[in-house]
Amino acid sequence: MNLDLLLRTISAPSSEWYDRAAARQHELVKPRGSLGRLETLSIQIAAIQETERPTTSPRAVVVFCADHGICAEGVNAYPADITWMHTFNFLRGGAAVNLLATIADAELTVVDVGVAREFEDAPGLVNRKIRLGTRNFAVEPALTRDEVLQAVAVGVETVETLAEKGVRVIAIGEMGIGNTTPAAAITAVLTGESVAAVTGAGSGLDDAGILKKAGVIARALEQHQPNPSDPLDILEKVGGLEIAAMCGAFLACASKRVVAVADGYISTVAAALAIRLAPAVTEYIVFAHLSGEGGHRVLCDSFGFEPLLDLGLRLGETSGAALALPLLDAACRTLAEMKTFTEMSS
Amino acid sequence: MNLDLLLRTISAPSSEWYDRAAARQHELVKPRGSLGRLETLSIQIAAIQETERPTTSPRAVVVFCADHGICAEGVNAYPADITWMHTFNFLRGGAAVNLLATIADAELTVVDVGVAREFEDAPGLVNRKIRLGTRNFAVEPALTRDEVLQAVAVGVETVETLAEKGVRVIAIGEMGIGNTTPAAAITAVLTGESVAAVTGAGSGLDDAGILKKAGVIARALEQHQPNPSDPLDILEKVGGLEIAAMCGAFLACASKRVVAVADGYISTVAAALAIRLAPAVTEYIVFAHLSGEGGHRVLCDSFGFEPLLDLGLRLGETSGAALALPLLDAACRTLAEMKTFTEMSS
Repeated sequence: MNLDLLLRTISAPSSEWYDRAAARQHELVKPRGSLGRLETLSIQIAAIQETERPTTSPRAVVVFCADHGICAEGVNAYPADITWMHTFNFLRGGAAVNLLATIADAELTVVDVGVAREFEDAPGLVNRKIRLGTRNFAVEPALTRDEVLQAVAVGVETVETLAEKGVRVIAIGEMGIGNTTPAAAITAVLTGESVAAVTGAGSGLDDAGILKKAGVIARALEQHQPNPSDPLDILEKVGGLEIAAMCGAFLACASKRVVAVADGYISTVAAALAIRLAPAVTEYIVFAHLSGEGGHRVLCDSFGFEPLLDLGLRLGETSGAALALPLLDAACRTLAEMKTFTEMSS
Repeated sequence: MNLDLLLRTISAPSSEWYDRAAARQHELVKPRGSLGRLETLSIQIAAIQETERPTTSPRAVVVFCADHGICAEGVNAYPADITWMHTFNFLRGGAAVNLLATIADAELTVVDVGVAREFEDAPGLVNRKIRLGTRNFAVEPALTRDEVLQAVAVGVETVETLAEKGVRVIAIGEMGIGNTTPAAAITAVLTGESVAAVTGAGSGLDDAGILKKAGVIARALEQHQPNPSDPLDILEKVGGLEIAAMCGAFLACASKRVVAVADGYISTVAAALAIRLAPAVTEYIVFAHLSGEGGHRVLCDSFGFEPLLDLGLRLGETSGAALALPLLDAACRTLAEMKTFTEMSS
């Protein structure tokens, strides 16, 4: 993968298609605007697909899985080995995302981009492990520049493979115990907000745990001084392998004109990094839900993202993005298939 | 239908089933609470169905259609005959609700409880027309007590018929040009808020139109003095046939232990009336979405209703409730089918 070449393939959908889709939307048999956000969503997807009759099928749900060396600092409520265990559970079909992908009629792809334990026999797993988790960024940078680029490439190639199969919509999310810590670090760097304002309970810290986590993040940012205008530098210093992979996945969706559905906090962090690399990426992303983790709202407000759902979800594993897929169906099918007033009268 | 007998069949789901469902929810392979409102929703439905493994199938979407004499006052942006036209369109399959019901795998039932024009040939229509629209409540009470009870009975019988077929979840909504006017009148009576605070643009009034509409409502309430503690009196004075029918439908859902999904503003008004008749009804209702019509928020805040979606929808025709059905699926299937930590380790 040549990142510079990839970035040069990305441009915004044409205003002509936004206009054509909006024109059809306004002729449908309903008061103008009465389908609210479904209307703007349908027009966005129509513009991406360059059609007045957008579609959401086939679609895929991807979970990028990786571990975090920062867990050695005790910043998370669950042991890190839970990442391995959950990744395995996705393959066996017992997790929330399995059911939500099934309900949404989407195929699930599980990518190991850096889980800290080997899978001996894991049928269905896409093994793209770059290393056994990141380094502990309380001590040293989480990744090398080369590892960041490798992880970005995993995301790009995952999307390219799905796009070649004709997939039109890809829900992008992750599993990685401890990853609200790098997410908070990256959010602080990208938004300029204080670490305290963006650090939350993750999967279940108490108040003392949150304070400790914020302290670890603040010291690491002080030590590594990530460059706010260089997303790759941020990923190198305080990132995660699944975050870099998702960043690549968002870039590739924009490049291939595939609709990307961002999941919750961690996925939105990756989306924000991709948008900093290529601003037009934002027009290819639907933000599925506002996470219960507080840093997410800060990030969304800062970038102007408007998630569709607000249900207090904070599970990750692409569950919120899978849950939102039927809303995309509703948006696209109403635009594509509702009658216009002219058609109804005839 | 004997309303007193019906009301006596309604009681809240048992706390034992709430507790059993919550216990299973807390054992699933995810951090406790990480599925946010899907968790409380799953527990509510489990308690209604008296099981730890709730289901949302089969399900139905019902649209009660009727007209409003108050349209003679010029309180609406569209001509009243649009009700007839849209009702016909539901039967032909070209409306938003047709697509949303299809996406949600739900059967659509269209009930004429008082459209102001006869349907000569309308295959699939359930003809329970009570009269050709309500009377103009700017002049006289909208309905007689007997007509209110007949309309309530239509809703009850519609639900009973579906429940006999085994339907477990029913989305309840309406089509009736002009019905944000009775909805605002009823909201003002039920909440004690000012008419100005609960009157909105409906399907497209400008500011002058909204002021005129509020004036019509305020004068009618002054003239008829509906009794806030008597839902049937409110329906008689300023109600609508589809609102009364939906009120009956919510009552029957509680009686038959079927999950009711309220659509937007008008449907929530009917739900609030049903809850005033039998407070336990509230535990059988899921509120699908917060309408873009301002009176809805006032009503929800007053009664403590918490709609799942907030997408600025203001279409009616049960579209928002149909749109929310996949969220109920997600809630129930995660509770019913996710593995517990014990199951995952074995």
